[in-house]
Amino acid sequence: MKIGISQLNFHIGNFNENLTSVAFEIKKAQQFNLDLLICSELAICGYPPLDLLEYKSFIDLCTEALERLAKICTDIGVLIGAPTLNPESTGKKLFNSAYFLADGQIRQVFHKTLLPTYDIFDEYRYFEPNREFKLLKYKDRKLAVTICEDLWYEQPFEADLSNKRLYTINPMDELIKEGPEIIINLAASPFSYTKIDVKQNIFLENARKYNLPVIYVNQVGGQTELIFEGGSLALNRKGVIVKELACFREDSAIIDLDSLLYDQMEPVETKPKDPSAMIYQALRFGLRDYFNKSGFRKAVIGLSGGIDSAVTMVIAADALGPENVHALLLSSTFTSEDSVNDAIKLAENKSVEYDILNIEKLFRQVKDTLQPLFKDLPEDIAEENIQSRIRSLLLMAYSNKFRHLLLNTSNKSEAAVGYGTLYGDMAGGLSVLGDVYKTDVYRLARHINRNKAVIPENIITRAPSAELKPDQKDTDSLPEYDVLDQILFQYIENRKSEKEIGKMINDPVLASKIIQRVNRNEYKRYQAPPILRISSKSFGSGRRMPIAAKY
Amino acid sequence: MKIGISQLNFHIGNFNENLTSVAFEIKKAQQFNLDLLICSELAICGYPPLDLLEYKSFIDLCTEALERLAKICTDIGVLIGAPTLNPESTGKKLFNSAYFLADGQIRQVFHKTLLPTYDIFDEYRYFEPNREFKLLKYKDRKLAVTICEDLWYEQPFEADLSNKRLYTINPMDELIKEGPEIIINLAASPFSYTKIDVKQNIFLENARKYNLPVIYVNQVGGQTELIFEGGSLALNRKGVIVKELACFREDSAIIDLDSLLYDQMEPVETKPKDPSAMIYQALRFGLRDYFNKSGFRKAVIGLSGGIDSAVTMVIAADALGPENVHALLLSSTFTSEDSVNDAIKLAENKSVEYDILNIEKLFRQVKDTLQPLFKDLPEDIAEENIQSRIRSLLLMAYSNKFRHLLLNTSNKSEAAVGYGTLYGDMAGGLSVLGDVYKTDVYRLARHINRNKAVIPENIITRAPSAELKPDQKDTDSLPEYDVLDQILFQYIENRKSEKEIGKMINDPVLASKIIQRVNRNEYKRYQAPPILRISSKSFGSGRRMPIAAKY
Repeated sequence: MKIGISQLNFHIGNFNENLTSVAFEIKKAQQFNLDLLICSELAICGYPPLDLLEYKSFIDLCTEALERLAKICTDIGVLIGAPTLNPESTGKKLFNSAYFLADGQIRQVFHKTLLPTYDIFDEYRYFEPNREFKLLKYKDRKLAVTICEDLWYEQPFEADLSNKRLYTINPMDELIKEGPEIIINLAASPFSYTKIDVKQNIFLENARKYNLPVIYVNQVGGQTELIFEGGSLALNRKGVIVKELACFREDSAIIDLDSLLYDQMEPVETKPKDPSAMIYQALRFGLRDYFNKSGFRKAVIGLSGGIDSAVTMVIAADALGPENVHALLLSSTFTSEDSVNDAIKLAENKSVEYDILNIEKLFRQVKDTLQPLFKDLPEDIAEENIQSRIRSLLLMAYSNKFRHLLLNTSNKSEAAVGYGTLYGDMAGGLSVLGDVYKTDVYRLARHINRNKAVIPENIITRAPSAELKPDQKDTDSLPEYDVLDQILFQYIENRKSEKEIGKMINDPVLASKIIQRVNRNEYKRYQAPPILRISSKSFGSGRRMPIAAKY
Repeated sequence: MKIGISQLNFHIGNFNENLTSVAFEIKKAQQFNLDLLICSELAICGYPPLDLLEYKSFIDLCTEALERLAKICTDIGVLIGAPTLNPESTGKKLFNSAYFLADGQIRQVFHKTLLPTYDIFDEYRYFEPNREFKLLKYKDRKLAVTICEDLWYEQPFEADLSNKRLYTINPMDELIKEGPEIIINLAASPFSYTKIDVKQNIFLENARKYNLPVIYVNQVGGQTELIFEGGSLALNRKGVIVKELACFREDSAIIDLDSLLYDQMEPVETKPKDPSAMIYQALRFGLRDYFNKSGFRKAVIGLSGGIDSAVTMVIAADALGPENVHALLLSSTFTSEDSVNDAIKLAENKSVEYDILNIEKLFRQVKDTLQPLFKDLPEDIAEENIQSRIRSLLLMAYSNKFRHLLLNTSNKSEAAVGYGTLYGDMAGGLSVLGDVYKTDVYRLARHINRNKAVIPENIITRAPSAELKPDQKDTDSLPEYDVLDQILFQYIENRKSEKEIGKMINDPVLASKIIQRVNRNEYKRYQAPPILRISSKSFGSGRRMPIAAKY
């Protein structure tokens, strides 16, 4: 049996486009005389469709699309993800299903058993879990069809409160009783730089535990915050990877099932992946796909001479082409000459066009306008925020006038402690670095500069500053970033307590101060742009905190 | 047996404060020689604690608080909600539980069976469902202890895809087998103006179906977006309400169980509730409690002379006291003299202090600053947005300087179709009217003016305008609000399709145009402030839509 795997990039709700690309793959598969083609989870509508699933009309479009696809599956079998209406009189309205299309019709349906409902996942919001276990029997072969999380029963994380299994049933333990010859997994598993090895290990362990080969077909593409890296795999029964699809682009492969079953496929040499390189590729890909899918071609960015906007600009220029990026340098009296020169040099290094505007007169006019109210009160954070908001006002004006999407340049460390101005530097249509801690932003800069100094060395080595008052430095109000990021990582990613972190860094006062700042600034993050997610715990829909709480 | 019910307002994570108020109630109950005191769902930590539940340290604080409370429960039994660590080796880490404290210790624990995971609810994110059914046996009485959704098996909504039950098990059908004498329900059930009758009917139906009296103890208080109205109830076995606690404030009552069991309690006269009056009270209460819980005392608001800012200002003045509200009138050349005069009159009617600033010079300075980029391009939406953002810049400056929280004045109709400026009139710490359709804003205005013209009649009757270009009217780019709101309600609340709505309003082109606008503007709403929720489907965490989708 010849099996094709198609790792495609779907546009949520864009049924025509999704259908066309699947139909194209089927046609190709038919030309190669494949027996079976496998697509990813909820491929029909794209993952995650979120509350669009609550619209009957949306489900109807999924069903129609499936039926149209089934018609062309005359001499081939296709496994493809789609939602199913739950026919029972009780339970959630839908199943998250894998459809088997063959002989021009829908032949069989398999439902997902384990419904991730944590972090960015909300599957129990929509889906009823499967309770019936059966194999796909096709051309004298028996295949165990699983959907994404179904193979994650033994997942090693999300275990911060105890060392327990998240689910009470292991679908593969049920399916194995029916004597399958191979495990198929239709997935929509998003990228996280902490999860690269974890993912491969999950499949390795399933292969070994059940003594079966595994074929894993993942979705690829950016879906607003989420980046699906693809990286689909085939492993033999020893857990050795024998086929690996590309990361961050569409890809496909043909697998001869007999070769896979009888261990006749060569191991793939998998190189250890450099996290900075992976993060860089993920961000570039996520950015590009957000533009593609939301119909934007061009980006505008405020270039300050600091490292965050520098890295953001480089990623944007690589993602969209430098001709599609415009930089605005918005200087004030507090902007050092170095900052301007470095920003210019950076833009020129990347062939990005830029304009320089001085915000000084505007800043004075704002202060004049407010004079009747502010009178002779001393300048404070209000005036700092005014400058930041003047910049975003100009950037958004450019964005609106020329239809460039404003890229946000805040990093995760700032976002965590609220070191940023709401509607000021926190503005933008998409946050590129909002899930990257400041110390990792430096690593990205080093990665960008690995062959040549694209980002002027000065930008990397100069002490970080918001340049909103004379001689300001980030360290005036924050600890050194390596200490800060350690506290933040332990609190946000690892859910450690104030007390534990205080011990860990040997400074309970600092730990407490930082954690309180994180908690106090939920209100700011609530209004932040969508953030490209690259970690296991990003701000945004994966981290839901009460605002008016005291903790 | 004498039962006390305590409808309290909890501050999420504020264990000291929550504990103090429960302990005070217990003491009071002891003075009245009550046998049992009932508090609401997750009372220990406040509802909804969201991802704070993922912190082991948070759960430990809940447990400590429970143990401290148990110690004072020597001559009284207390039923109170708190999370429990799941001791099993599989399943979610927690249960959502009702603790029975008596004899100075934790005597028994009951877990919630039905875990709402829809709209604003994410309970399956944290909790494992209960599978064991037992009664509370106390002083020769047998009580069925249920938690909120446990009584909602037969809920009549969330049924937009079919006429089915959301859950596969009905906990009361299990508990009834043990022969309970009464149903107790610990709840945290948020306000929605569409749900006032639905709620009472749910309890009525449970009472009749099981032929048992029901005591329902709800949380009261604002929790950022969510408003819990309280309105706790006791019903006899015929489903007649015999005790009703206040809405929108803390309240308590004593119920003699024998009188309740033997139908010796007088029916309460429940008046039909005017939706506008309820919405008004809910918003006033939600606003006030957000300020209380986030440590703000004063609000600033941009007063335009339009109806949205007028209604918002009145609600704020009523909630916080007029001395705690400051209005800024930010006029431009496009601001009509009527608008300014009406705004002044309104502020004076409510004794709210105001300042008038003209944004004209600032607008000109922004245009001058941008002149090198914009050159002689015609003015368009960019310039309209600039004005809106200048206003928010000034309002936020005032907010930062004087520590006033900026109230957002956008309504639900605008938010739905993206008729607003991101970082401009969409700015603010809290959206007061973001869940109120424009036609309902008019109803609120009429309600406010029911005895006297607080809001100048002109504001109510003048055609709505953003006043961002000469002679602008909302109807230049939107249909009349009664038509618009009908389309929006059918699409957002009722999840009807474009096609169905087109038929309903007999204008498929308009239906399609409006629905496309709703879909296209997810990106704007993503960055909107938290919205006080008063409907069954508010923008915010209860409605999760993909941004970069095409539908």
